[in-house]
Amino acid sequence: MTKTPLFNKVAFIGIGLIGSSLARVLRRDGLAAEVVCSARSDGTRDKAMELGIVDAAYADAREAVAGADLVVLATPIGAYGAVAEQIGPHLAPGCIVTDVGSVKLAVVRDVDPHLPAGVHFVPGHPIAGTEHSGPEAGFPELFRDRWCILTPLPGTDPAAVDKIVALWTAAGSKVDIMDAAHHDKVLAITSHLPHLIAYTIVGTADDLGEHLKQEVIKYSASGFRDFTRIAASDPVMWRDVFLNNREAVLEVVQRFTEDLTALQRAIRWGEGDTLEALFTRTRGIRRSVIDMQQAYGSGIARPDVPKTGEVDE
Amino acid sequence: MTKTPLFNKVAFIGIGLIGSSLARVLRRDGLAAEVVCSARSDGTRDKAMELGIVDAAYADAREAVAGADLVVLATPIGAYGAVAEQIGPHLAPGCIVTDVGSVKLAVVRDVDPHLPAGVHFVPGHPIAGTEHSGPEAGFPELFRDRWCILTPLPGTDPAAVDKIVALWTAAGSKVDIMDAAHHDKVLAITSHLPHLIAYTIVGTADDLGEHLKQEVIKYSASGFRDFTRIAASDPVMWRDVFLNNREAVLEVVQRFTEDLTALQRAIRWGEGDTLEALFTRTRGIRRSVIDMQQAYGSGIARPDVPKTGEVDE
Repeated sequence: MTKTPLFNKVAFIGIGLIGSSLARVLRRDGLAAEVVCSARSDGTRDKAMELGIVDAAYADAREAVAGADLVVLATPIGAYGAVAEQIGPHLAPGCIVTDVGSVKLAVVRDVDPHLPAGVHFVPGHPIAGTEHSGPEAGFPELFRDRWCILTPLPGTDPAAVDKIVALWTAAGSKVDIMDAAHHDKVLAITSHLPHLIAYTIVGTADDLGEHLKQEVIKYSASGFRDFTRIAASDPVMWRDVFLNNREAVLEVVQRFTEDLTALQRAIRWGEGDTLEALFTRTRGIRRSVIDMQQAYGSGIARPDVPKTGEVDE
Repeated sequence: MTKTPLFNKVAFIGIGLIGSSLARVLRRDGLAAEVVCSARSDGTRDKAMELGIVDAAYADAREAVAGADLVVLATPIGAYGAVAEQIGPHLAPGCIVTDVGSVKLAVVRDVDPHLPAGVHFVPGHPIAGTEHSGPEAGFPELFRDRWCILTPLPGTDPAAVDKIVALWTAAGSKVDIMDAAHHDKVLAITSHLPHLIAYTIVGTADDLGEHLKQEVIKYSASGFRDFTRIAASDPVMWRDVFLNNREAVLEVVQRFTEDLTALQRAIRWGEGDTLEALFTRTRGIRRSVIDMQQAYGSGIARPDVPKTGEVDE
C-alpha cells in the first residue's frame, strides 16, 4: 500500500538555500509526486537538476506553476510582487501558495492582490538558515527543531493551513501561527536588528587601515568573529528584508541607539555602577534562552558550518 | 632525571575562569613546584583548594606572594592598582609579575609604579574565555591554539619575557608581542565593541514588555542568541574593561554609530544599492577570518559550552 503524497506537484519559485532544503525534504519523505522549480539563472537551474532535487527546472515561473497544487515563493522577497503578478493568472484552482520570506506584512501586501479567487495563500517563515547561499548549500535537516511561523490572513481555508502545517512538521519544525504585523515586530528585534548591527560592525572594521584590519582578522576570536558569520549572510535577501520591514526595524534601531548612547555616556563619565547593573541584567536573558533551548531542543546538526561557540575576552 | 619546573612558586591573585585555567596548565605540565592563590571570598578559596589546583589559598595577597618567583594578577583589572600597592613591598627580588587583563595601557599605568626595582613586569592578555565565571569554570585547554599578547615595556629583562612566552607556549597559545597602546586599539574593535553592542542589544530586548520579551527568547535562534552568549560574560570584568580602555572604546563606538546612522538613513529612504553594497563587502572579511582560522587553527575544544553556530533568518 503506497502512502498518498501530501502534494501532487510542488513548484518552487527560486531554489536557493531555503527552497532547495525544503525540496530535499519533499524528496526524502516522498511528500510530492512531482517537484519543479523556476530560477532566472541558467547556473541555478542546472545545479538544481544536477543535484536531483527537482524533476524539471524552468526559466519562466508561469511554466513551473502550471498544474501545481503547491507553489513555494523562495526568491528574495523584493521579487515577490512581480512574480505573483506573473504567475497569478496561471495558478490552478485550489492551489496553495506559500513563501519562506523573513518579513510577512510586506509579503501579504505584495502577493495577495495578485492571487485569483480559489487560490489559498498561507505566508510562512522558517526560522532557519546558514550564511551559505545557493541550491548546493541546502540540506534537509536545516529545519529540524526550528520554528516555522505561519501568518495566514483571517478567513483562509483551514484545510490549506493544515497542509502547510503538515509540510513543516514533516521537515521537523515546530509551527506557530500569528498575525503578520506581530511577526514583523518580533523578528525585527530577534533577527533583523542583530543582522543590521553585525553588518555595521564588520563594515566599520573593513574601513580601518589595511594593517589594522589584518590584525582585527587575526584576533577576531575575541568576539568579532561571531559578527562576521552573521554579516556573511546573503546580501540581496537581507537588503530586501530591511527595505520591507522598514518601520519595525527603524523603531528598534532607534531604541538600540538610545541605549548605546546611554552606555557611551556612562563609559565617558566613568559610571561603573550603570555598566555593571546592565551587564548583570543581561545575564538573565541568557539564562532564559538556555532554558528555552533545553525545553524545545537546541537546534540542528549542521554538517558544513564551522562551529564557533567561543566567547572571548 | 627530573625536569626542572619553569617556576618554583607561582602565586595567582584572583582565581576565576582565567586564573584557574592557567593554574590547571601548571599542574598538568608540572611547570611549578608550588602553586598558591589569594582570593577575597571564602567560597572561592575553598573551591580552589577543593579542585586541587592550588597548594594553598590566602585571603591576604601579601602572604600569597611571599617567596614567589611568578605572580599572576588575575582579578578584574579595576583591582590591580590596589593589589600592586599592597604586594609591591613583599615581592621577592627577581620575581616576575604578569597579568591576564583585557586592557594593557591602564594596567601598566596602575601596576608598574608600585613594583620595586629588580622585579620584572610582563603584562599579558590571553585572548580566550567563555561566558562562565569562577574557578570551577576553568579548564586547561582554554588557551590552546589561541593568541596571547604580551606588552612588555621597553627595557624589560628579555629573560623574564622569555619565561612568560614559555608559559603561554606550554598552555598551547600562540604568543605575540606588541606595545600596550596598539593592543588596546586592536582589542577595542575586535572585542570591546562587540561586547558593548551585545550588552546593549540584549538590554534593549530586556526592556520590552514581558510578552514580547518571552517571544524574543523563544525565537532567539534567528540571530539574537549569539548576542546573548556574549552578553552573559562577567559583569565586573567587563565594567573594568570599558572604564579602563575608555578612549579607544569611545573612538570605535563613535565610528560604529556613524556607520549605523548611515544604514538607518539608507533603510528609511529605501536606498537598496547602499545596503547591498555594504552587505556584499562584509562577506570579504568573513572569508579572511575563515582563511585565518584554517591557517592558524580554529580554536579549542570547549566541553561545557553549548554549540551555537547557527546563523538564521
